[in-house]
Amino acid sequence: MKIAVDAMGGDFAPKITVLGSMEAIQRYKDIEIVLFGDEEKIKPYLTNNERISIVHTDKYLDMGEKDPVRAVRSGVDYSMLLAMKACKNGECDAMVSAGPTQVVIVGAHLIVKRMKQMQRVALAPIVPSLDGKGKIILDCGANVELKPEHIDQIAFFASVMAKCVFGYENPKVALINIGSEPGKGREVDKETFEVLKNDERLNFVGNIEPKEMFYSDCPIFVNDGFTGNILVKSIEGASKMFGDALKQEIKKSFWAKITYPFYKKSLKKFKKRFDTSEVGGAMVCGVNVPIVKAHGNSDAYAFSNAIKQVRSMVEQDVIKKVMEGFENE
Amino acid sequence: MKIAVDAMGGDFAPKITVLGSMEAIQRYKDIEIVLFGDEEKIKPYLTNNERISIVHTDKYLDMGEKDPVRAVRSGVDYSMLLAMKACKNGECDAMVSAGPTQVVIVGAHLIVKRMKQMQRVALAPIVPSLDGKGKIILDCGANVELKPEHIDQIAFFASVMAKCVFGYENPKVALINIGSEPGKGREVDKETFEVLKNDERLNFVGNIEPKEMFYSDCPIFVNDGFTGNILVKSIEGASKMFGDALKQEIKKSFWAKITYPFYKKSLKKFKKRFDTSEVGGAMVCGVNVPIVKAHGNSDAYAFSNAIKQVRSMVEQDVIKKVMEGFENE
Repeated sequence: MKIAVDAMGGDFAPKITVLGSMEAIQRYKDIEIVLFGDEEKIKPYLTNNERISIVHTDKYLDMGEKDPVRAVRSGVDYSMLLAMKACKNGECDAMVSAGPTQVVIVGAHLIVKRMKQMQRVALAPIVPSLDGKGKIILDCGANVELKPEHIDQIAFFASVMAKCVFGYENPKVALINIGSEPGKGREVDKETFEVLKNDERLNFVGNIEPKEMFYSDCPIFVNDGFTGNILVKSIEGASKMFGDALKQEIKKSFWAKITYPFYKKSLKKFKKRFDTSEVGGAMVCGVNVPIVKAHGNSDAYAFSNAIKQVRSMVEQDVIKKVMEGFENE
Repeated sequence: MKIAVDAMGGDFAPKITVLGSMEAIQRYKDIEIVLFGDEEKIKPYLTNNERISIVHTDKYLDMGEKDPVRAVRSGVDYSMLLAMKACKNGECDAMVSAGPTQVVIVGAHLIVKRMKQMQRVALAPIVPSLDGKGKIILDCGANVELKPEHIDQIAFFASVMAKCVFGYENPKVALINIGSEPGKGREVDKETFEVLKNDERLNFVGNIEPKEMFYSDCPIFVNDGFTGNILVKSIEGASKMFGDALKQEIKKSFWAKITYPFYKKSLKKFKKRFDTSEVGGAMVCGVNVPIVKAHGNSDAYAFSNAIKQVRSMVEQDVIKKVMEGFENE
């Protein structure tokens, strides 16, 4: 299995992408990695090139890229776009980038291409839940605004994925909203509710408020990319704040500090459960190749987990299963 | 100081509202409470009527009230509306209800009346932050959709409040958005950004992502009620989930269980910092009387904190200070 890595994407590239790739190579003996990027800049960090090769380009995207469509159409050999082309041509099986989100989305659209059943591509991170299974939230930022029929397609895509890949019998789908009763939300939410309710392919269970999500037995939560993004970033921020506040309280207490060694393991496990770096990144749903968008500020461990995530998408043959799922409905 | 309490509002009324009122009476010697509701149902819980009186009505609103405008205009003596009328007539100085949010908002509009400077009323809870000062987020659900000029008014209202009541010199205001750069978000966010930027009365610092909020030195965060509500409910849900997961991890570990007594105090302090029941409820901003909307599922302690919150709004003369602030600008 060959995984294309955009070595120049992310806030700390190429250091982190190279270290993360070497870490992934150690963890998974069945993968090869192709680093796309500036050989001169990559090499100082590449202390072990076992199963790692480099495709050189000295062009790469700025994290603040303002015009993703122009960037993708420019024909310039940016590292991210070369990695995508390698997937398109079948030279690589999957791709990871911590580069600018909107370029990943536009590149996925225009280079890797959408599945014919999907008019929109969606970003889908897995967020933690109390039962440890995680929840799929989409869209989380690929499309700021979405029409009800697009959300419906995305909901169906996620249902097929939850069924074929995660083994859910008849996966429930809920619409993220500000109240649980029908008729809640913006005009677009009310319309989307009706469309989802009337789609017989879906096991639609109605609206759900963000505070109920973590305790719900529903694995799939949908809305537009603005709503999903606000939701996911709120959880992320709250998670970081809780961790920091807990540390503060422990440091303040004499007894808590003294007995910390006995608590360390529990607190570490607790941290691990909600650490976004454990998850890796967000899946790009609706395109023909497994792509994971890692966090721009990933560290090496988080980046290696993004590789882990895309590896398991290839291993489980997600794209083929979803395609078949679409055809069987 | 006389505080009107809608004794019949909330999921566990009147038990919780009566117990919470008695608790508040014990904590604050300078308040009197008037309970509006069904005397027969209130009395079994009212074990001490020191400084507490009852105004009887056997009419009260269902928590699932579908048509708030009809309910308010009906002329029926619902407990919540009687409490509001008592404020309007000057018989009471402030009001607390755990009843249905939209009726509180519509009642505030139509009975208590808006300040003339405000075209919309906003719900503003205080959410926890790492520095312990808390952040004001508005609107959090009074208006699902808002025009840029309404968000601008609400931002100015909050600025005046932060300055006159909370003592901020030149309070910063940020727009809740999915990216920090200008040009991010939905069309309405881009327009709102421009309006806020061009309002010279505001210390507008631009867009902010929810994950940065908790660490920012900005006290005021604005957007429409859909966005604010998704944000606040995400934090609430995450907060509950983190607490539960921490408990789980501690129970799983032998050593953590054994040394728990040494940790208890720190963990309790930690819990207290993020417990929404500590905050009380959300202020109804932009009307002529201090009103706090308590959570529908408040317990007695949370409800007594909602009374504490409205009491401090009266004590600090929030409405008058904000009015003067408006006139001085």
